Amino acid sequence: MPILVHKYGGTSMANIERILSNAHRIAKDIEKGYQVAVAVSAMSGETNRLLALADEIDPYGSGRERDMLASAGEQVSIALMAMALHKIGIGSVSFTANQAGIKTDPFHTRAKILSIDDTRLRKVLDEGKVPVIAGFQGVTEAMEVTTMGRGASDTTAAAVAAALGAERCDIYTDVDGVYAADPRIVPRAKKLDRISYDEMLEMAGAGSKVLQTRSVVFAKKYNVPLQVLTSFEDLPGTMISEEVEGMEEVLVTGVCSDKTEARLTLYGIPDHPGIAAQVFEALNDEGISVDMIVQSVGQDGQANISYTVNKSDLGDARKVTEKVKQGLSARDLSVDEKVSKISVVGVGMKSSGGVAARMFRCLAAKGINIYMISTSEIKISVVIDEDYTELAVRTLAKEFELETEE
Amino acid sequence: MPILVHKYGGTSMANIERILSNAHRIAKDIEKGYQVAVAVSAMSGETNRLLALADEIDPYGSGRERDMLASAGEQVSIALMAMALHKIGIGSVSFTANQAGIKTDPFHTRAKILSIDDTRLRKVLDEGKVPVIAGFQGVTEAMEVTTMGRGASDTTAAAVAAALGAERCDIYTDVDGVYAADPRIVPRAKKLDRISYDEMLEMAGAGSKVLQTRSVVFAKKYNVPLQVLTSFEDLPGTMISEEVEGMEEVLVTGVCSDKTEARLTLYGIPDHPGIAAQVFEALNDEGISVDMIVQSVGQDGQANISYTVNKSDLGDARKVTEKVKQGLSARDLSVDEKVSKISVVGVGMKSSGGVAARMFRCLAAKGINIYMISTSEIKISVVIDEDYTELAVRTLAKEFELETEE
Repeated sequence: MPILVHKYGGTSMANIERILSNAHRIAKDIEKGYQVAVAVSAMSGETNRLLALADEIDPYGSGRERDMLASAGEQVSIALMAMALHKIGIGSVSFTANQAGIKTDPFHTRAKILSIDDTRLRKVLDEGKVPVIAGFQGVTEAMEVTTMGRGASDTTAAAVAAALGAERCDIYTDVDGVYAADPRIVPRAKKLDRISYDEMLEMAGAGSKVLQTRSVVFAKKYNVPLQVLTSFEDLPGTMISEEVEGMEEVLVTGVCSDKTEARLTLYGIPDHPGIAAQVFEALNDEGISVDMIVQSVGQDGQANISYTVNKSDLGDARKVTEKVKQGLSARDLSVDEKVSKISVVGVGMKSSGGVAARMFRCLAAKGINIYMISTSEIKISVVIDEDYTELAVRTLAKEFELETEE
Repeated sequence: MPILVHKYGGTSMANIERILSNAHRIAKDIEKGYQVAVAVSAMSGETNRLLALADEIDPYGSGRERDMLASAGEQVSIALMAMALHKIGIGSVSFTANQAGIKTDPFHTRAKILSIDDTRLRKVLDEGKVPVIAGFQGVTEAMEVTTMGRGASDTTAAAVAAALGAERCDIYTDVDGVYAADPRIVPRAKKLDRISYDEMLEMAGAGSKVLQTRSVVFAKKYNVPLQVLTSFEDLPGTMISEEVEGMEEVLVTGVCSDKTEARLTLYGIPDHPGIAAQVFEALNDEGISVDMIVQSVGQDGQANISYTVNKSDLGDARKVTEKVKQGLSARDLSVDEKVSKISVVGVGMKSSGGVAARMFRCLAAKGINIYMISTSEIKISVVIDEDYTELAVRTLAKEFELETEE
């Protein structure tokens, strides 16, 4: 039988009424002849409630203990979801990450999935029951509980879908799909019917909060289509899949903004091979992800390197960079938290040039200064002053026709 | 170094302020030269909050899922307690039951500890850190999460103390010790300085809610003294230990009442060997504990058996007994929930007779009818109409001088 994975986010798990409504939705797909596995988030507000307790003690406390704490939220959800399924006559078994065999690396609060041993999940599916798996969490080889960052229940769902060879992974959330621009900034932003894995990857990395980036990585790698849809209404969502014919006809699929990054700049470092590697290896050793990197040649054979990291990693990144700075006898280190990243994404860029020029001209016309530029085959990102975020997004949405007509 | 186990109940974990205060108390014992291990309950109200969510779906739902749900409460507590210790500079590592190697039988919601693999706990202690262990919960061989009944965090603490060969296990709670009678019924009830394991066992089994019975079983078996004391003030508590000289000088140590049991009576069963066994083996197979048993010879070579079970097990017990009743062609089955068990306990009874007679005379003088009687070497229990509970306790507390003078 074909397998579907359903994922329910916090707002879809907010109360018993909604949890029972999810159970009925699962029942419908079972009636259609699917085996269904479910991944769930903590009830909305619960992760924040728990982490606020931790912050009351120490906002910079042990990652191990924060993971132990936060993962309790999903444990509540899996039990309630399984109970709701029982209530309507559907066999179900809840699974902590430990029980589901979701193994991660040992980087607390930002762990990554290494493997899923799906033996127990398959056994439950084969018994005609619905496994309900705790999202967000994992375990290390040493049985330590880890979590994988906010929004990581998407990744759990996609990884489970990949492991089970699911036909599709339906991500139920409180928005009804993926929009070409954030509707809070661009009220008439177009809803997308389809988007390619690669575009979604770039958009997730560029600040679209609809899906955690790594969920799309799993989906793409194992070619499992993801559908983003709302659990509040019976509406078609946005399908994320391989690139299909016609997708390239649109030049720009979406525009995104991201205020979660901070920029670090190292001034006056020796301009010879291997220097950049030293900086980024040191950051990587601490499990800190770097997003944009721009190296520029300065004076006297010296160079400057700017790069962006997530603000939550800024404390660690600054420490690591300070050490490297001393090792390299760099002249100075500056940190700028008041920045925003604006990106336009579209597979259409592969075949048509000129998008970058149009983007820069557009921003210049509004007097917006560009600090950093980074491009990929299907994305152009710029870092600007945070204050201009909304203006930049609205301007680019208009320029690239990302709004509905009416 | 000698080891102490601290156990903090729900009211002692109610908020961050109290949790930090526990951390300071642990620090004091470390300064005195002890290694300290800690067992904690869920924050007060949390287990009720979680189970209320479950009840909203189905109050008679899967025990497995109720355990999965409820055990999340202790997971929150261990993380917060470890964070609080870090905050004041004490190394600490939290342990779920799974991580602490607390293996139980598979009877959900009333599991019993089978073994503790203390390897990881000892490793953490040897590193000079404080292991903080989730009370109440365990895991089966098949990695299923179990819980061990309300109040079972005491049992976790005592079992951990036994496994680690602790010098003492301090049970911090919201009462300042064990009283000769429930102070809500007998306001001037004496607080006990010392009580023997056997007396405490009988009192716990007789309705004293200060400690879960099985915690005392572990303590007695491994000869680990338990101390019951409050975390709200710096007061000496009650020490529970082996019987020492002088204890027998007091005839009755305490009087207890218990409204949590219900009485079942099977009428007209064949009066020959092995019949009682059939009833109680069937109950045992379902993991249902039976407390008092009274068999009486009836007419025509037939007998009646009355026994009491916890009201929470009554539904299951009734089902099992109905089946046995049919197998035995018994005449009738009656169930009485409106009963109360009144017990007097004291090692002094071993050397002095006449306590039973005094007890029965006392109750008769107040017009209280006795339904069942059961005695041990150091305890006499009677089952009476629930309405007379408080009157019986007050009368017996007076008779056996269990009140302070002033």
